[in-house]
Amino acid sequence: MDFQLAAKDTHSRARAGTLTTAHGEIQTPIFMPVGTVGSVKAVPQVQIKEEIKAQIILGNTYHLYLRPGTDILEQAGGLHRFMNWDRPILTDSGGYQVFSLSGNRKLSEEGALFQSHIDGSRHLFSPEKVMDIQRKIGADIIMAFDECPPYPSDFAYAKKSMELTHRWLARCVQHLSGTECPYGYEQALFPIVQGSTYRDLRKASSEFVASMECDGNAIGGLSVGEPEETMYEMAALCCDILPEDKPRYLMGVGTPWNILENIALGVDMFDCVMPTRNGRNGMLFTTKGVINIRNKKWENDFSPIDEGLDCATSNCYTKAYLRHLFVADELLALNIASVQNLSFYLHLVAEARKHILQGDFKSWKDNMIPQLKQRL
Amino acid sequence: MDFQLAAKDTHSRARAGTLTTAHGEIQTPIFMPVGTVGSVKAVPQVQIKEEIKAQIILGNTYHLYLRPGTDILEQAGGLHRFMNWDRPILTDSGGYQVFSLSGNRKLSEEGALFQSHIDGSRHLFSPEKVMDIQRKIGADIIMAFDECPPYPSDFAYAKKSMELTHRWLARCVQHLSGTECPYGYEQALFPIVQGSTYRDLRKASSEFVASMECDGNAIGGLSVGEPEETMYEMAALCCDILPEDKPRYLMGVGTPWNILENIALGVDMFDCVMPTRNGRNGMLFTTKGVINIRNKKWENDFSPIDEGLDCATSNCYTKAYLRHLFVADELLALNIASVQNLSFYLHLVAEARKHILQGDFKSWKDNMIPQLKQRL
Repeated sequence: MDFQLAAKDTHSRARAGTLTTAHGEIQTPIFMPVGTVGSVKAVPQVQIKEEIKAQIILGNTYHLYLRPGTDILEQAGGLHRFMNWDRPILTDSGGYQVFSLSGNRKLSEEGALFQSHIDGSRHLFSPEKVMDIQRKIGADIIMAFDECPPYPSDFAYAKKSMELTHRWLARCVQHLSGTECPYGYEQALFPIVQGSTYRDLRKASSEFVASMECDGNAIGGLSVGEPEETMYEMAALCCDILPEDKPRYLMGVGTPWNILENIALGVDMFDCVMPTRNGRNGMLFTTKGVINIRNKKWENDFSPIDEGLDCATSNCYTKAYLRHLFVADELLALNIASVQNLSFYLHLVAEARKHILQGDFKSWKDNMIPQLKQRL
Repeated sequence: MDFQLAAKDTHSRARAGTLTTAHGEIQTPIFMPVGTVGSVKAVPQVQIKEEIKAQIILGNTYHLYLRPGTDILEQAGGLHRFMNWDRPILTDSGGYQVFSLSGNRKLSEEGALFQSHIDGSRHLFSPEKVMDIQRKIGADIIMAFDECPPYPSDFAYAKKSMELTHRWLARCVQHLSGTECPYGYEQALFPIVQGSTYRDLRKASSEFVASMECDGNAIGGLSVGEPEETMYEMAALCCDILPEDKPRYLMGVGTPWNILENIALGVDMFDCVMPTRNGRNGMLFTTKGVINIRNKKWENDFSPIDEGLDCATSNCYTKAYLRHLFVADELLALNIASVQNLSFYLHLVAEARKHILQGDFKSWKDNMIPQLKQRL
């Protein structure tokens, strides 16, 4: 995997780069739509490619391991072929889902014992097991197995958890070096910085992660309930330590303004369920601001959903039509809102990149944020 | 509206023709996907056009009247513009839904008083009211207001109901002649033959309907629970009487083999919720036969859903992937199955047309039916 910086902003830490994977190039900063269980919810692959223009999508190791399972994915020749997606894929480590979704989980040095949220069956995720699973899924970027402590966590717990994550990381690196991608292409490991909201821990974790000299690095354990200012403070601290010549991925973030602020701090990659999940509830992110499309005020607004986007769905349907589909509980509403929100997120990071390259990112960002936050 | 016959089969009553409407041509025989409330469930309009290749879709007057309502549709400039669909649309009369969905309905000479299935509000559908509603929806083909008697109905009830439908038809024709399409293009009225499963009534109704000299004619009240042979017997009888130079529309039919058999009897147009509704339940109609995609046997079948179709969705996803999406309750499953089934239905009627033009429809149909019925 190769990462080349194309430009650095002079008034912020923002960067524009190109990440090259076995399945193609990614222009950073980038947002990755979440395709939990092998599908970006409610959106056909042709729309992910042609309308949303996603360059990389994310799969969840926990979900894919439970369904369809690694046997099926291996027989299919990996997730790319299974789901008919020929661009890059990143898989998370499953750690976050083990702690947020499964019942009866039990943590030990060895790994995490947990029960499936689907059928209650018992499973162990260890660093080695999670590397093997991600090998079989076949993502271009795979994540180290970590514990994501809840917010708030006391210092002692956060420290103990971080140290476990570090020992697990060493085991991931060790195990990976003795295995190969079953499909013949390169898979890059990204380790994850933890340390909750403690500056000392975040600093130590960033240094440890940087010392592993992986192809890219991630910041985990943020956007889990802490104040926005704390998230920015921690992200800034981590970005200052994580190597400049490697991509930085802030996991699970966030709102459109969270993304712009973190780009300004030096983050290159993002993922979040917000555009799809909130979209399915009728919350639209647009170039003009935030819309609750169920509101009666849109009942006879026959303007396009978002003329500011180069996306057929955003331009060919009206707000009145989409509002009607939500009120009538039509499935098409979920598709249109998801395509709108993801197209907007991809548009936003493409605009950010453009302004980094132009050299006016900081002032553009400061102008954009109030507009993006506006409730229409 | 213009209808030109291009070919008649010599070994059956099948015909191929071209129906010209204000929104374009329709090559018959044709199947019309059902877009109940302004959306073909789970399918974006771009797929209806480009993958399914629908030439005309159907809207339900009852549903559209309740939501979004005629005020919104009028402000939008009609249903075509509201839903972003520039090809022909047909609307039913709402009669069927009044009797199957709404509560507390009360029939009189004037019309049908009913309660909305959504909020219990009270409404009257009279022939005049239903013509006005369909004017405002703006469909290219609008249906006369009828009573659709249940199966079985006794002769006396069926006769009384048919006579009421005939008087309502006269009122529809009378009322329409004094009104115009608010959007400036032609809307053609199709009257509906009723008469339950009684040959004498069907004959009388077909003669009455034919005497109105409308631009096309429909056969209603079939596929409501009667044996298939009875449906064919009634359809044949009606087709023999309904004028040859006008399109014949058999409402609410049916399975792929029902459609081929009725084409052989002289029917030109069909609609049915089966491809979309059954699709959403995991039942696929394919060129090779019927598939229950939830079955474990498809778990590791990595062949395309249906290579026999010229449809991207049917070719780019595998049976194993679609089965996984159904098992994991993913919304994309509903889209893929609906696109597959509708593409198949449109393929089937296009093939029927091709064989009518070639002159070998009858033998092709007799070969196809066992294949289509096969459970894979």
